[in-house]
Amino acid sequence: MKVSKYLDARPSQELPGVVKREVINADDGAPNFCMRVFDVDPGSSTPWHTHPWEHEVYILYGQGVAVSEQGETPVTVDSVVLVPPDEQHCFRNTGTQVFRFICVIPFVE
Amino acid sequence: MKVSKYLDARPSQELPGVVKREVINADDGAPNFCMRVFDVDPGSSTPWHTHPWEHEVYILYGQGVAVSEQGETPVTVDSVVLVPPDEQHCFRNTGTQVFRFICVIPFVE
Repeated sequence: MKVSKYLDARPSQELPGVVKREVINADDGAPNFCMRVFDVDPGSSTPWHTHPWEHEVYILYGQGVAVSEQGETPVTVDSVVLVPPDEQHCFRNTGTQVFRFICVIPFVE
Repeated sequence: MKVSKYLDARPSQELPGVVKREVINADDGAPNFCMRVFDVDPGSSTPWHTHPWEHEVYILYGQGVAVSEQGETPVTVDSVVLVPPDEQHCFRNTGTQVFRFICVIPFVE
């Protein structure tokens, strides 16, 4: 069993205004999937992109929108988002404080 | 993209004092893993058990301990726990309010 706090994980700057922490990854011995925590600054957004794997997202803090080609859906603490494989998407902070969420992905080859 | 709130998911009583909600599961189209949220009442605990798959856990609310054969580790909001496959474990509420955490597991055959 490995117990840590999310701030223990090394931060990496994904984009201006977007910090990612891999809180559980393969180096920890995780066999199937990686848990990351994203901190998005007010006005910033994760990339508008697509990939052949899913996202399972849980909002921890702040106010934002989950964006797909169908439009924008407001999300806040305790919102849950499944982004299916191959669906264009991003997450944007629409609030005045940090927008923080968990995003779990399968390990990809 | 499917957006919901964790309380939208149907609760099931796992044990006295332990409620589980599958906030993202196969019925939603998730291909690889299931996201569940557990609410554990003060004094209650998830089962002391083991299984051949991992848990990836993120604490959302309250005070508890992550228990393994090595002992008990206090956990609270923003704590992260990886339970490797085949490790005996449980999570117990040691506080006076609900103890809430996300637990992600792979789909098992």
